[in-house]
Amino acid sequence: MSYARQMLDSYPLSVKVDASVLAATIDALKDCAQACTADVADDLGEQNVTELVTCIRLCLDCADVCAATAAVTSRQTEEDANVTKPLLEACVAICKSCGDECERHAQMHEHCRVCADACRRCERACRELVAAMK
Amino acid sequence: MSYARQMLDSYPLSVKVDASVLAATIDALKDCAQACTADVADDLGEQNVTELVTCIRLCLDCADVCAATAAVTSRQTEEDANVTKPLLEACVAICKSCGDECERHAQMHEHCRVCADACRRCERACRELVAAMK
Amino acid sequence: MSYARQMLDSYPLSVKVDASVLAATIDALKDCAQACTADVADDLGEQNVTELVTCIRLCLDCADVCAATAAVTSRQTEEDANVTKPLLEACVAICKSCGDECERHAQMHEHCRVCADACRRCERACRELVAAMK
Amino acid sequence: MSYARQMLDSYPLSVKVDASVLAATIDALKDCAQACTADVADDLGEQNVTELVTCIRLCLDCADVCAATAAVTSRQTEEDANVTKPLLEACVAICKSCGDECERHAQMHEHCRVCADACRRCERACRELVAAMK
Repeated sequence: MSYARQMLDSYPLSVKVDASVLAATIDALKDCAQACTADVADDLGEQNVTELVTCIRLCLDCADVCAATAAVTSRQTEEDANVTKPLLEACVAICKSCGDECERHAQMHEHCRVCADACRRCERACRELVAAMK
Repeated sequence: MSYARQMLDSYPLSVKVDASVLAATIDALKDCAQACTADVADDLGEQNVTELVTCIRLCLDCADVCAATAAVTSRQTEEDANVTKPLLEACVAICKSCGDECERHAQMHEHCRVCADACRRCERACRELVAAMK
Repeated sequence: MSYARQMLDSYPLSVKVDASVLAATIDALKDCAQACTADVADDLGEQNVTELVTCIRLCLDCADVCAATAAVTSRQTEEDANVTKPLLEACVAICKSCGDECERHAQMHEHCRVCADACRRCERACRELVAAMK
Repeated sequence: MSYARQMLDSYPLSVKVDASVLAATIDALKDCAQACTADVADDLGEQNVTELVTCIRLCLDCADVCAATAAVTSRQTEEDANVTKPLLEACVAICKSCGDECERHAQMHEHCRVCADACRRCERACRELVAAMK
């Protein structure tokens, strides 16, 4: 069981959405942020770095947006309904762009294939959390 | 001249929006993140901390969202139009909530008055950047 | 296999330390940052929040230091030998303090018990990485 | 007066070090983090990006370490004496490396000159805070 899930299970107040959906999303957000941070480092180690500039930019944005969204959703502030939704929307958008770009290099660079996978999973998880929030 | 502005002025590609609006927004986002981080510490030092729990939660969320938005807008990734807008929308929402909550304690706690001021300025700056992006 | 490990395995340059030790440390750092971020939220939901102020402060510091250390160690910059060591030293110190404080509340609050566990594992992992770097 | 300074002036407990030194350091850390984040974006926009790979890596590390150190020093947790010192030591080391690397490109790229300047100021400020903590 992930730490996100364990911490939600011992949350003293009521969890506002389905705890298993929320925990899965937090895990996917953290995984995606980690994959993107590492993919930037991997891209910077490649010979053809000039062709990976867009990939690097998108990974940097994706890591930042996912990390912030993981923190905010972990915190479960009562008042944040109209904060969390656009935040998750921004996550879906950057995970889509970053996943598409990584996929273009997936055949040549295994790290981009892994990163694309993390982005796809995160995009899906964020959509599921938005659906569960209704 | 702030570092955000100096760095934009030496950006090798064309800046996609009015550089002075963008630089002012980045500065406001960084200031707001700093004020919120410090306000949490200040709140935790107060005797009546139980009454400041909502303020602390909102300040934590606000700091995270503003920091991520400052990073993403500083980076100016070409592809991020549908990322930046919901992100700025999330910023406006959390700055509004956090500013409102801080204002409720502004008379009793000077640090909340200062933090409310930073939130208001940041909310305004984010709205102006959204308008400038059209 | 964690994303940290998958990304290290596809790193185009040579990994400077034992990859399994490094991946385990990055995972422990991310887990600890997540546990601490969530423990703050959990603490803020408790009736006796005034008694948890030190715990909250330490968890906030611990989350920030662990997240930065995870990013820096994931990046594997050649030049960072004298950056990574003090950073891991700071991690060990904050994980120790935060773990000790959380343990004091472990019987009363399950979330502090889980957080203490994450801090202990992270402290151990950081010590192992420092040892592996020699 | 910066927000860091205003927030310290309304801190309800006693500030452990000289408030003007602490506020100046927090401001320098935030400025340096911002300059480094922006310099990465600027580097990625240059034709000769392959020659700037080390600069990008160091700027990414420097931004992460400075941001975490700004947050921890802003928080002034009582127990963090043996956390803050190695953290500031890590800051001094990365600001030195990053400043040196940026300076090598300062004549060719104005953004690297500005970033080197932010790194030098931050390195100096961190040393001053360490001295003031004794």
